[in-house]
This record gives sequence, structure tokens and C-alpha cells, in this order.
Amino acid sequence: MTISQTIKVAVDAVVFGYRNQALHLLLIQRKLQPYEGGWALPGGFVLDNESLEAAVQRELREETNVTINYLEQLYTFGAPERDPRFRAIAVAYYALVKPDAFEIAASTDADDVRWFDINALPELAFDHAEIIRHALRRLRNKLTYEPVGFGLLSEKFLFSDFEKLYSTLLNKPIDRRNFRKKVMSFGILTELDEKRSDGKGRPANLFQFNEDQYFKMKNQGFYFEL
Amino acid sequence: MTISQTIKVAVDAVVFGYRNQALHLLLIQRKLQPYEGGWALPGGFVLDNESLEAAVQRELREETNVTINYLEQLYTFGAPERDPRFRAIAVAYYALVKPDAFEIAASTDADDVRWFDINALPELAFDHAEIIRHALRRLRNKLTYEPVGFGLLSEKFLFSDFEKLYSTLLNKPIDRRNFRKKVMSFGILTELDEKRSDGKGRPANLFQFNEDQYFKMKNQGFYFEL
Repeated sequence: MTISQTIKVAVDAVVFGYRNQALHLLLIQRKLQPYEGGWALPGGFVLDNESLEAAVQRELREETNVTINYLEQLYTFGAPERDPRFRAIAVAYYALVKPDAFEIAASTDADDVRWFDINALPELAFDHAEIIRHALRRLRNKLTYEPVGFGLLSEKFLFSDFEKLYSTLLNKPIDRRNFRKKVMSFGILTELDEKRSDGKGRPANLFQFNEDQYFKMKNQGFYFEL
Repeated sequence: MTISQTIKVAVDAVVFGYRNQALHLLLIQRKLQPYEGGWALPGGFVLDNESLEAAVQRELREETNVTINYLEQLYTFGAPERDPRFRAIAVAYYALVKPDAFEIAASTDADDVRWFDINALPELAFDHAEIIRHALRRLRNKLTYEPVGFGLLSEKFLFSDFEKLYSTLLNKPIDRRNFRKKVMSFGILTELDEKRSDGKGRPANLFQFNEDQYFKMKNQGFYFEL
């Protein structure tokens, strides 16, 4: 059976980072045409014998020096005109990390690599703005039914840090009293007998993430209903 | 820029049907090698100038005579060995319909087409069993945060029909009292001044779906927490 099809398959990585209480996004500056010099998601074409997951990890590593063991598949973008060169579909993946854990460095097809504040993104190549919008929706949706992002805080943190993380990722204010009541009722945070100042008010108790309880909640399904 | 890549792009349709209070799945019997004579999801290769959505609709129409205007993208399956002929990735889509609304008829690559009870599926070609498992998880997950499947019931229905639909799709018993209380509290069902017997007990009131309220809830996010 011969399939006369000339569609190319690419992968793209939407890597979100939480730093200085702001949501960031990892972008590369393209070295080649099309969109030469423009900013884009790290990504590239899948090799013939490589899984999609291996491809997105490889492209990310090659172009930005960032190694991420698990990226979640987001969506496949396949509009016929999305690449001006030829028909190419993009299987997009996303992840949420701590930027300080990585030493970013541009290489191969990338001239530069940077973390951009999500509220100050440059103009983007291809349909990457659409892919990012889609990833943000997915991330925010996920936050409402799963406690995402504990790995983004220090081991011990103020409740206000956790609240700020959620408020930042969701990009909306949180009803503090209800949120605290709800989160504490799940038992995923342990209040420690140790205080720290948030730099403004009087010292407040530190909290620690209860990982066992987290995995238990995760398996049962988890609803914040924010 | 030349991309020496020989990956083919296919689409597959997971079409669930709800009939006789049971969940069904639309499958075709393959006319060609590989897996000749085996059962498989309707699907096929994307044409060079066709969107992924158009491709899955076309393949479904050609192979089964079923026209569905909206299928939701499920996941892209790309393991290097999933097709014994060549490297082929499959962008899978799914939908949930009323089987009686369609006159199925096998054509092109299909020798036969049938609705199978989800609990009595035949052996499946390729990685289609995995794709179906994935689609079932997604469908069941979606049911817990969105009121799916009202279109599967008659215009006026007994609350027990609705409960049975949910119980069947979720494949688990439902706590009747809590479920009814929760569903009614959302205001998406209107209780009518009209009765019908369920064939067993005394006549019970009929219900109608409140579409305006449904879309309002949908926009706000919706949590059954079943």
C-alpha cells in the first residue's frame, strides 16, 4: 500500500516556569527561515524511529539545554497553512517547572533562549501564540481539579506563597478564606511549628507539602472548585 | 530546508453510542492488509490539503456512512512500531452519539460496520484497544465535570433514565439520593407536570433538559463530583 502523503510531523514544547511570583514561558529565537530572528516555542521535526515524547525532549535539550523528564501531551495542531514551507502538523507538549533549576543555553536552530513573563511575550512565529493560549487554558483548568505546582515552591513555604502561586497561575484573585479552608480540608498541607516573616506583616507559620496525602487525593480525583 | 522524514499521518474516530441503556462503540471490519478481516476504529490517512478534523469526518463518512459534525480531539498516538507497515502516527478523535440517528453502511476500506457493546468488543487491530481505553477514560472524566450526553435521551425522560445514562457511561453504581440532589441543585433539569411509568413501579414525573441553564453552567465550569 502506497500512501502519497507529504505531511511532516513536528513537536513543540510549551515550558512554563514560575519565578519571582510570576508565570514565565521558555522561548527560543529562530536562527533559520522562516521567521528568522523571530521568537518561537522550542521544537522541531520528529526522527523516523523516535517516539513523539523522545522527540520533544531531544529538541528541548538541543535548542535550550533544558532537560525535562515528563512533558504532558497538549494537542495536535494541523491546520493546512500553519507552516509557510510545507504541510506540517505539530504535536504540542507542555510542562511547568522552576526556571532556577536549569541553565538555559541556545544551540542548533536557536540563536537565543529566554524566559519571558507570560504577560510580556514577544510576537511569535507560526501559530505558536495559539498553541500557548491553548496550553494556558489547559494548565489553568488542571489547577482546578489537581494540586499542581508544589514542586515550584521551597520545601517549607508560607501559605501566602501557595496562595500567590495559585492566584498567579490562574491569573485571578482568590477568595483567601475559602481557599485556605478548602486546601487545609484536603490534608495536603501540614502546618509546621516554625515561623517566618513574609517581609510585610508579623511572622506566620510555615507549611510543608504532604506528598503521601497528595498522591492519595490524586488517585481519588481532586476538586478545588476554585 | 529538506526534512528527510517518512512518517505518515492518520486519523482515527472513536464513536461511542448510547442505546438500550448500554454504551456501544462503532467499529469497521478491515478489507485490506494488515489485520485483514480484523475489527478496527474507522479512520485513515490525512490528505495533503485537508485539516485533521475534515479528514476524520471524511474517513468516518466513507467507511461507515456516519456524518458527525463535531468530534473532539483525544490524543495523538505515535509509538514507532504501532503500524507494521511503516511509521504512522494517529491523531484520535472521539464523539458520543445516539446510534439510532444513523444508518450505518460499510464502504471503501471497510467490509462491515457494527455497533459493539463496549463490554463485548472483538479483538482489535493496531493499538486501537489502547486508543479506546484512553477515550473511555476521557469520556468518564468529562462526565464528572460537565453534563454530557443529554442529547442521548428522549426530549422528555424519567430521572431514572438520566441516572442510568450516567451510571452506564461511568460504569459504576450511583448514589441515587446524592446524585439527584446535586443534579437538581444545578437547575439543568426541569421537572414537568407530566408522568410516565418506567415499566416497573408507579408512574413518575418526566424531566426536561434546561439548555439555557446548561450553557450557563458550562461557561462557569461545572462540577458533579461524582
